Amino acid sequence: MSYRTEHDTMGEVKVENSKYWGAQTQRSYENFKIGTEKMPTELIYAFAKLKRALAKVNQDLGKLDTQKAEAIIQACEDILAGKLEGMFPLAIWQTGSGTQTNMNMNEVIANRATEILGADFRKEKLIHPNDHVNMSQSSNDTFPTAMHIVAVLEITGKLLPALDKLHATLHAKSQDFKDIIKIGRTHLQDATPLTLGQEFSGYVSMLEHSKEQIMASLEGLRELAIGGTAVGTGLNAHPQLSQKVAGELSQYTGQTFKSAPNKFHALTSHDAINFAHGALKGLAANLMKIANDIRWLASGPRCGLGELHIPENEPGSSIMPGKVNPTQCEALTMVAVQVMGNDAAIGFAASQGNFELNVFKPVIIYNFLQSLQLLADGMLSFNEHCTTGIEPNKDKIDYYLHHSLMLVTALNPHIGYENAAKVAKNAHKKGISLKESAVQLGLLSAQDFEKFVIPEQMIGPKA
Amino acid sequence: MSYRTEHDTMGEVKVENSKYWGAQTQRSYENFKIGTEKMPTELIYAFAKLKRALAKVNQDLGKLDTQKAEAIIQACEDILAGKLEGMFPLAIWQTGSGTQTNMNMNEVIANRATEILGADFRKEKLIHPNDHVNMSQSSNDTFPTAMHIVAVLEITGKLLPALDKLHATLHAKSQDFKDIIKIGRTHLQDATPLTLGQEFSGYVSMLEHSKEQIMASLEGLRELAIGGTAVGTGLNAHPQLSQKVAGELSQYTGQTFKSAPNKFHALTSHDAINFAHGALKGLAANLMKIANDIRWLASGPRCGLGELHIPENEPGSSIMPGKVNPTQCEALTMVAVQVMGNDAAIGFAASQGNFELNVFKPVIIYNFLQSLQLLADGMLSFNEHCTTGIEPNKDKIDYYLHHSLMLVTALNPHIGYENAAKVAKNAHKKGISLKESAVQLGLLSAQDFEKFVIPEQMIGPKA
Amino acid sequence: MSYRTEHDTMGEVKVENSKYWGAQTQRSYENFKIGTEKMPTELIYAFAKLKRALAKVNQDLGKLDTQKAEAIIQACEDILAGKLEGMFPLAIWQTGSGTQTNMNMNEVIANRATEILGADFRKEKLIHPNDHVNMSQSSNDTFPTAMHIVAVLEITGKLLPALDKLHATLHAKSQDFKDIIKIGRTHLQDATPLTLGQEFSGYVSMLEHSKEQIMASLEGLRELAIGGTAVGTGLNAHPQLSQKVAGELSQYTGQTFKSAPNKFHALTSHDAINFAHGALKGLAANLMKIANDIRWLASGPRCGLGELHIPENEPGSSIMPGKVNPTQCEALTMVAVQVMGNDAAIGFAASQGNFELNVFKPVIIYNFLQSLQLLADGMLSFNEHCTTGIEPNKDKIDYYLHHSLMLVTALNPHIGYENAAKVAKNAHKKGISLKESAVQLGLLSAQDFEKFVIPEQMIGPKA
Amino acid sequence: MSYRTEHDTMGEVKVENSKYWGAQTQRSYENFKIGTEKMPTELIYAFAKLKRALAKVNQDLGKLDTQKAEAIIQACEDILAGKLEGMFPLAIWQTGSGTQTNMNMNEVIANRATEILGADFRKEKLIHPNDHVNMSQSSNDTFPTAMHIVAVLEITGKLLPALDKLHATLHAKSQDFKDIIKIGRTHLQDATPLTLGQEFSGYVSMLEHSKEQIMASLEGLRELAIGGTAVGTGLNAHPQLSQKVAGELSQYTGQTFKSAPNKFHALTSHDAINFAHGALKGLAANLMKIANDIRWLASGPRCGLGELHIPENEPGSSIMPGKVNPTQCEALTMVAVQVMGNDAAIGFAASQGNFELNVFKPVIIYNFLQSLQLLADGMLSFNEHCTTGIEPNKDKIDYYLHHSLMLVTALNPHIGYENAAKVAKNAHKKGISLKESAVQLGLLSAQDFEKFVIPEQMIGPKA
Repeated sequence: MSYRTEHDTMGEVKVENSKYWGAQTQRSYENFKIGTEKMPTELIYAFAKLKRALAKVNQDLGKLDTQKAEAIIQACEDILAGKLEGMFPLAIWQTGSGTQTNMNMNEVIANRATEILGADFRKEKLIHPNDHVNMSQSSNDTFPTAMHIVAVLEITGKLLPALDKLHATLHAKSQDFKDIIKIGRTHLQDATPLTLGQEFSGYVSMLEHSKEQIMASLEGLRELAIGGTAVGTGLNAHPQLSQKVAGELSQYTGQTFKSAPNKFHALTSHDAINFAHGALKGLAANLMKIANDIRWLASGPRCGLGELHIPENEPGSSIMPGKVNPTQCEALTMVAVQVMGNDAAIGFAASQGNFELNVFKPVIIYNFLQSLQLLADGMLSFNEHCTTGIEPNKDKIDYYLHHSLMLVTALNPHIGYENAAKVAKNAHKKGISLKESAVQLGLLSAQDFEKFVIPEQMIGPKA
Repeated sequence: MSYRTEHDTMGEVKVENSKYWGAQTQRSYENFKIGTEKMPTELIYAFAKLKRALAKVNQDLGKLDTQKAEAIIQACEDILAGKLEGMFPLAIWQTGSGTQTNMNMNEVIANRATEILGADFRKEKLIHPNDHVNMSQSSNDTFPTAMHIVAVLEITGKLLPALDKLHATLHAKSQDFKDIIKIGRTHLQDATPLTLGQEFSGYVSMLEHSKEQIMASLEGLRELAIGGTAVGTGLNAHPQLSQKVAGELSQYTGQTFKSAPNKFHALTSHDAINFAHGALKGLAANLMKIANDIRWLASGPRCGLGELHIPENEPGSSIMPGKVNPTQCEALTMVAVQVMGNDAAIGFAASQGNFELNVFKPVIIYNFLQSLQLLADGMLSFNEHCTTGIEPNKDKIDYYLHHSLMLVTALNPHIGYENAAKVAKNAHKKGISLKESAVQLGLLSAQDFEKFVIPEQMIGPKA
Repeated sequence: MSYRTEHDTMGEVKVENSKYWGAQTQRSYENFKIGTEKMPTELIYAFAKLKRALAKVNQDLGKLDTQKAEAIIQACEDILAGKLEGMFPLAIWQTGSGTQTNMNMNEVIANRATEILGADFRKEKLIHPNDHVNMSQSSNDTFPTAMHIVAVLEITGKLLPALDKLHATLHAKSQDFKDIIKIGRTHLQDATPLTLGQEFSGYVSMLEHSKEQIMASLEGLRELAIGGTAVGTGLNAHPQLSQKVAGELSQYTGQTFKSAPNKFHALTSHDAINFAHGALKGLAANLMKIANDIRWLASGPRCGLGELHIPENEPGSSIMPGKVNPTQCEALTMVAVQVMGNDAAIGFAASQGNFELNVFKPVIIYNFLQSLQLLADGMLSFNEHCTTGIEPNKDKIDYYLHHSLMLVTALNPHIGYENAAKVAKNAHKKGISLKESAVQLGLLSAQDFEKFVIPEQMIGPKA
Repeated sequence: MSYRTEHDTMGEVKVENSKYWGAQTQRSYENFKIGTEKMPTELIYAFAKLKRALAKVNQDLGKLDTQKAEAIIQACEDILAGKLEGMFPLAIWQTGSGTQTNMNMNEVIANRATEILGADFRKEKLIHPNDHVNMSQSSNDTFPTAMHIVAVLEITGKLLPALDKLHATLHAKSQDFKDIIKIGRTHLQDATPLTLGQEFSGYVSMLEHSKEQIMASLEGLRELAIGGTAVGTGLNAHPQLSQKVAGELSQYTGQTFKSAPNKFHALTSHDAINFAHGALKGLAANLMKIANDIRWLASGPRCGLGELHIPENEPGSSIMPGKVNPTQCEALTMVAVQVMGNDAAIGFAASQGNFELNVFKPVIIYNFLQSLQLLADGMLSFNEHCTTGIEPNKDKIDYYLHHSLMLVTALNPHIGYENAAKVAKNAHKKGISLKESAVQLGLLSAQDFEKFVIPEQMIGPKA
């Protein structure tokens, strides 16, 4: 490998010739050999969109000459086209402001822009990473801005579409199953009946509520720190920079962004991300509940509840022949657990700001993006490989329905709670049917029992 | 002590004569000797408001006769007037649906209503806990309804007013301090200047964002499970019950409530509370940051940062004479930590529903209400005993400002980032001032330095 | 109410005459109106034991005269005899070093000791809270010492005995059930058989492992901070104080305590408590698993798994007559969730020390003691009201066993995994027995099947 | 790309010819497109060691013929030599038993072993993944066994050596700094003095305690599930298998392993890992405290505490020239936060077992290994790039020491706590020295003051 010498304010550093990055990236690369987690591509792309918008706005504001601006813009678009893959090698576990990743962006863009301008960046620099690419900026405002951009784009572009797909399938199932009456279960104990469609409508509603919560939490994410520069005052930035960058980004991405009303807040508190992840945690809890229900309802095939059939995707056991397991449910519940853990990490990190800056930014966005991806992928996988194939086991459902003692609840308005309890307890003790029990206890005639206890009429309120 | 015999569907139980509760409360009291945490009074009161509304609506709907309804309503109002204190002795750690607390309500109200109707509940029952007080209800819909009622009332009646008070004080301080220029700090290292008022405006903005998040999360809490009865179908309830109860509660409490659009969701998912607690976690993180900043800025008196004076409320040490500590900051940061722990408990609990019910309701509302109270009390205490008394130590602030090397940032647009770095590094190394360093390096005349580096002009953007 | 004037280094404070506490307690009482959580009695008692030991040792070392020492010792014993109930009113949410509770101890002991010496503490002080009761001490070493004392005493005196009781019951059940063969379940799907006794032996082993972990974590808790005084150096303490106090406490409590080898560590890190709570979290996870299993195995009565009967302790539903729920399981799983939340709080708090002190001590010990009590009480309640009454539903167990397809696993060594899978799948598809399937597929004769597939021989390894 | 057809009990699947895996791996690869997290290489290697040991033991026990056994052993060694890189492509988010990764091992080993035996695995199979490689095993015992193996090997081989290195450096610093007296700080407020060496000895002791805790938690990890097969009974395994495999692994790895005393426990509870991660959480909390201390003590250079110099590794700011930040401290505190989040995930997952199996195994080991690697790498990086270069700023340290008011504590034994407080408060109020204040108040002569207040004599106990 051949090397060149790059320099920064601390001196010279050797960099491999094939790399577009500069001295500061190289220093970070060498100084933080921690773990395998790299800055996610999605974040790099959000950063590229931001740097592009900044070049455009600095040009508009007359601070950056057109030639330089256009070269920078082109370099950003090259990144977004995937042409500079492998040039962003830095770890999550670096400086807590993400300065080194901001400089990685600045250096790669500066070198690529130099190249676009026709020079060899290995020999001369036509674009300076700090003075031009980072013009009117600080890591302290660009990094949190990139965090918000990527959060909004990934939520709207990846998470919500996945949620919508699962929602659509569950909604369709809820419709398909609307006439299948089954036993309810509370405390894992037999309860009054409902339709399988109603049960699924609960899942549908969970996803709808989670979606509303996520959308409510989007608002804060649309506020951008850019324009705050080093400590929130906006030193070295033009007064209109912030608004203009937000406008440019809105236009470019199709998502609304706005200048954060208070930049001191925007640099030092990550409450918007913390809150948004609370919504993700809520989604995770709902998904865990749904996946748990499905795997329980599909338990068996002979010694479980067995009310549902789910797709058989893989052999379930390396030792038990013919076994099939609810593997998609398991993957989804593991995802839910991970999101819960991530939520703890984010809440903790968000509380640890000092003065003008919170320096736990990389760990926050790492966990946030992992949650987003796992939830999105997890829902798609669960949808495609499990939910779409769910079928009711009507015989089993029907059998349970007609053997349950909790149909007795329909008698409350007629013979009172205490007498109804006697009927149920007597039936349970003697292993007989509710009707037999009611008649035996002399509380009701068989005809009246049949008139009052009709599962079909127990699945809704009555005037 | 004298005892009477009460009974339920399981048989007879001895209850102390002075107690208004019945058999099921007594059973729970005896069977769950776990911890010291009781169902909070706030929840009992929310329950009383709910039971009152239900009696009214059942009467309106013609299901409950007027005499009984009025007795039940009166009994509920007695509870709300504090006349039945000591009658709700049940532990948080009981059945996970809160059934036993619902029955505790039913039994106490039935017995008190019997008394109101002129009978001795120790001898006869004119009102039945299940058939009358619990008419058209299940624990499975009343308990989550009471959870939402208490959450909305405590947030709007206790938490937000406390937040507003602290906000007002911080806002006033931000105004008072608007002309005090001080050094900024990022990464705990000296950074470019800002005003103390700006620094405090960040705290103000944090509270505003937290408030917005809490208010956004209120929406879901306004949806009530009532009308779902045992499994969400509404069996044994009138179709209009849910809307009417929500309306009655809205009128009585002055807060908007509505019937949950899907009752299966409302019984089995606690996503609304989970999400709302995410907003509380966000507030906790912001408060932790604020309290940490204050105690750091007030550190000293001689060997710390010492930029702020905070009130001296208590002797700080049992061994070090004259020591004063930032005790209110410490209490508030401990509160923040507790809220983080509670968030983990709630998220976990919310994920553990099965089929038609989540049976972790008491632990969820316990943690939620603890967080609400601690945050509200903590903010009031911090406001009264610390924030209102914060004063700047102007000498110290001024000293730091004029010795900091980061004023050099103002030179970036004039001599470039790299030359500016040389100035700072040279000054640091030699222990001289920036101006001396700049002149020494031949990069700038003293006059130019003085023209460019003016702290007063470094606290905002510039066109 | 009548009041007297007490004073401290900050001046005078009015205190109710009936109270034994002094000025600093009163200040804290007034300044920290946060929440309802008070310093637990168990901690106060541990503190009294510590103050008693210190008086004794200071006397032995010739620093405290006998009369004063004996009065202090007597005052401590009065506290331990419950004679000074109501004199320790301070909140958890106070200064993070617990200084105010240390001073509460000092003041009450000083006043009570003054009384013991024959004077009226309302008029004169024969014993000084700082100079005598707090001699050679700081809150910074006494509070963490009291934390360790109470942790060791509560673990050994309350938690482990409760664990042992539940262990004994489960062990007995495991023996009782050793000949009941049942179907195993993995992934909630039918698996190869085991005995019910073996299944319970897993629970027994969980408790044994949890106990070992808790005991391993006790070691660090036996190290005491006392002797470190204000910052760990031991200023104003006698070099032998620490060892002697540990010795005295060991003798008095019957539990081994020793002087922490490094006092700087002992004041500023709470790794011992953090680690010990990790063991409690492990116990909580195990209990959650056990309680979940029990409630699932007891699910039904007609539409669940129904392999176990558990005691019917209370009516389960306010609307569904005759319903009985696994309420003890629910209480225990809620306890487990709470312990998980507490663990997050403790871990966070333990990470927040600065320099010579961690000022999150009260929130740490509050959560730790809550976990201890909830786990101990929860296990006792679960043991008494649920575990002891567990009975197998042999018919159901037997039915499942003989219908399961996973007995096919016994054929692996004879016809190979793939052929065995064919047998199982064919039986599943056609709804026939394994034997019928095997014969139908021509893979095995009926005789061979009967020879190979014997549940009784599937419950252990074979040479 | 060319493909071949592989089959399993569910039918045929197309697999790329270059891949050694089979049908089940391929199914999982296609069905679980969730996230980017793959089964870690460390786990794959632990699995290879296990499969190797099993082949050896099955051969010894006469169950597997020598030729097959040797081929399997050679295939395992090929994996361990890195020759089959890229053949283990499965996601963490798969079936919760890790069955698919067990089958991935079985399939790759079977195909490679077939090759070793001279055949083309694309055309014929001389070794069967289930019947031979997985002989006497189930995923349910192999996966948790591999979890324990990798945990022990990574802790002893990676984590503890890293901890030891950091310990050695801190210990050396503690020695180097043993004569530098500095002011103590509690509550961030000035306190009594100690040596910088003593302060660092606290860090040394933290690491020692964390190490002891980690080592205590190793014991449970040495217990292996192997031999339990599908549900813990050991069906289809030889009675000596478990002991022999543990012995073989001990010999091969140099670490002691033993057969778990209760296999039902070993499959369904992950308390050993949960507990061990509690120790990691404790280490994380200690590291967070240490890193926070260092960055605070190095804060400045002119407006912070400034008692320490730490290495300047990278330019700290993209906008503020000459700024240097405590980046290694920031990376390490972010690591600590991540470990806290992982702890929440693991505790939750460990609680979710059902019946004979916990199906959250992959998410547990993923978080566990991430914590191990981040802690190990983080400590090494922090050690190399920060700790080794820490130097005291003696002027600043000395300045603080001699201006602090808390030296007054040395007067307690001479003039009492209350008079000492007067001296300190008077000095603070008037901005004078303690000596001046004491003399001014007439409490002490200047000579006595000088005799009593000697920082050098305040750093330890005194008889």
